[in-house]
Amino acid sequence: MKTQVAIIGAGPAGMFLAHMLRTEGIDSVVLERRDRDYVEGRVRAGVLEQIAVDVMRKLGLADRLDREGLVHGGTNLSLDGEIFHIDMEKLTGGSTVTVYGQQEVMFDLFEAAGPRGVNIVWNADNVSLHGLDSDKPSVRWTEEGAQKELQCDFVVGCDGFHGVSRQSIPDTVLRNFERVYPFGWLGILADVPPCNDELIYANHERGFALASMRSPTRSRYYIQCALDDRLEDWSDDRVWDEVCLRLGPTAAAKVVRGPSFEKSIAPLRSFVAEPMRWGRLFLAGDAAHIVPPTGAKGLNLAVSDVTYLSEALVEHYRERSAAGLDNYSARALARVWKAERFSWWFTSITHRFPNMDGFDRRIQMAELDYIRGSENAQRVLAENYVGLPLD
Amino acid sequence: MKTQVAIIGAGPAGMFLAHMLRTEGIDSVVLERRDRDYVEGRVRAGVLEQIAVDVMRKLGLADRLDREGLVHGGTNLSLDGEIFHIDMEKLTGGSTVTVYGQQEVMFDLFEAAGPRGVNIVWNADNVSLHGLDSDKPSVRWTEEGAQKELQCDFVVGCDGFHGVSRQSIPDTVLRNFERVYPFGWLGILADVPPCNDELIYANHERGFALASMRSPTRSRYYIQCALDDRLEDWSDDRVWDEVCLRLGPTAAAKVVRGPSFEKSIAPLRSFVAEPMRWGRLFLAGDAAHIVPPTGAKGLNLAVSDVTYLSEALVEHYRERSAAGLDNYSARALARVWKAERFSWWFTSITHRFPNMDGFDRRIQMAELDYIRGSENAQRVLAENYVGLPLD
Repeated sequence: MKTQVAIIGAGPAGMFLAHMLRTEGIDSVVLERRDRDYVEGRVRAGVLEQIAVDVMRKLGLADRLDREGLVHGGTNLSLDGEIFHIDMEKLTGGSTVTVYGQQEVMFDLFEAAGPRGVNIVWNADNVSLHGLDSDKPSVRWTEEGAQKELQCDFVVGCDGFHGVSRQSIPDTVLRNFERVYPFGWLGILADVPPCNDELIYANHERGFALASMRSPTRSRYYIQCALDDRLEDWSDDRVWDEVCLRLGPTAAAKVVRGPSFEKSIAPLRSFVAEPMRWGRLFLAGDAAHIVPPTGAKGLNLAVSDVTYLSEALVEHYRERSAAGLDNYSARALARVWKAERFSWWFTSITHRFPNMDGFDRRIQMAELDYIRGSENAQRVLAENYVGLPLD
Repeated sequence: MKTQVAIIGAGPAGMFLAHMLRTEGIDSVVLERRDRDYVEGRVRAGVLEQIAVDVMRKLGLADRLDREGLVHGGTNLSLDGEIFHIDMEKLTGGSTVTVYGQQEVMFDLFEAAGPRGVNIVWNADNVSLHGLDSDKPSVRWTEEGAQKELQCDFVVGCDGFHGVSRQSIPDTVLRNFERVYPFGWLGILADVPPCNDELIYANHERGFALASMRSPTRSRYYIQCALDDRLEDWSDDRVWDEVCLRLGPTAAAKVVRGPSFEKSIAPLRSFVAEPMRWGRLFLAGDAAHIVPPTGAKGLNLAVSDVTYLSEALVEHYRERSAAGLDNYSARALARVWKAERFSWWFTSITHRFPNMDGFDRRIQMAELDYIRGSENAQRVLAENYVGLPLD
């Protein structure tokens, strides 16, 4: 079996890249360890930057997104129950974000894969990468017990934080940067109308809370919790009580309660691996970097990574130039680190840290108070939230 | 001896307040533990916000400032030797800062004190405050061995971080917020032309450096040092070498070396005491709060404190209204905390912290890189640097 680009992982990074390459006439095969139902069922991000919406449109995959996506021109911060609005659209001269769940994005990408000739191998087990520092890399895996091999020009690792791709780069080459946060997010999904037509990021004495949504009838709420909290101790009632308390009375009055159909606790992590290229292997998305979910940058960084990478691959195949590929890691990392900084900062100003002293808390409050009063500070928040430009 | 307002300390806060009250026809007496030469000789801040310049002008004390002060419309950041410019004047719609040493400010304030009838008692030893929670507060001290007492309506503590005023507030009332930084600043003064016509704040692998000045012929340089560094280990040559290394080759090429006539190591501290009023005692300036010197907010906060306080005292004496006095602490603290946040942040992004890991360093670099590329981020830096408005 041969192809031009072997893509490891059928998450957002891998599937966006496969579609981009397809429209450019570059062959690829996507190898995915799980099946479609599993990948599509994963509850993940829900907020698309304009760059992600633009990519969906450019790929001709935005019909449903344009119909069902919720365009948000603003967002909200809350300090101890007092909410203030950030008019992102006005502050950025017209940029918005679009609420459209990762599950929906994956559905659209998968539905179009077959008709367009995007090749996906499901249930590819025991994937291993070979000859990455040679001219003839290959990927091996097992499929229903049989050993398979794919020869290719390039391998792109889109297999997430725990995937095999990053681990295939020698330790002497790779440098990891990491921050683990001393709390997690408890998230619930419930088929009730959202309490607000935009998101509310709440910094409360008892911890962070986020009121979000997936659609006009499906709400997503998060609350900061201890890392060792157990789901069985968080009944729906307790979650709703805590959500209402932390959002404060104004928002709480509009919270519609209902049974959760998904409830989970996730840790928060900042992580970057450098460089994002080794030989003929390129990393994209969560395989190379993780952001805490505050500010919703994860999926969007996957999109900017593979946008840069597909440009570089086109340059390689069409113009026989290695310049784009050689510059990929530096170009992607420059945007990644700015998003890492924003996600870390936005987490820092909205969460309660166990080791915070009075000074830290006052600085948090002063920062939120400053943002509330300064249009320039709001512009900075807004331009990062809608997504920095693709340089 | 009787007066309306007893002012403890003849530093910037006390002397500005005494002059402000004098022009409003309110009597005060300033009690200072040291003599004029000592107070005037202290090497301190050197950068005035527009609000401080405006106060000097309003008091009719700005002749020399307007003649000799260096108006700076911009400032510079440097990351590992690469310098970029922040055009504050353009970014803020016309605001600037003025380089004019605290020693010059004190000289102007002291020179005008006698002719205008501003009363200063020098060498007032063993100052103690009495009856602060009564209607009849008083201040006692010894002067050349003799016991003295001043009866007054109000006491204003402008006697700095180590002064007696804040210590006169019961522990049960006062809440302190503090951050001590794990490094100091080694500063030198030398009669050589500055290397640049504006300041340069340098973040370098080896630590922070600041190129500043007092006049076109007097340079002020600082470098971050360890808290246990000893002055005798820092020869002038070593200081100049380190300054040049950290500023980077472009700036270093213009550094003119010369013998230092002042050299000292100062710790960095963030500190706020709340509230800034207890009974008939009001705190202003360093008596209530300390900022690290990065961004030069210390003297300017003293000016905003006493501006608020003099307004409140005028309101009390002229309109018989306690509203201003009752609101003083909250009003002053709102601005103080924003400046504390800025000074803490500006210190955070420019210094090397001993416990920094690779992630912290990358976040610093990403933040500086973001500031370099974002006009909005530059606006935020600029509006804080020139000084937030007096609300």
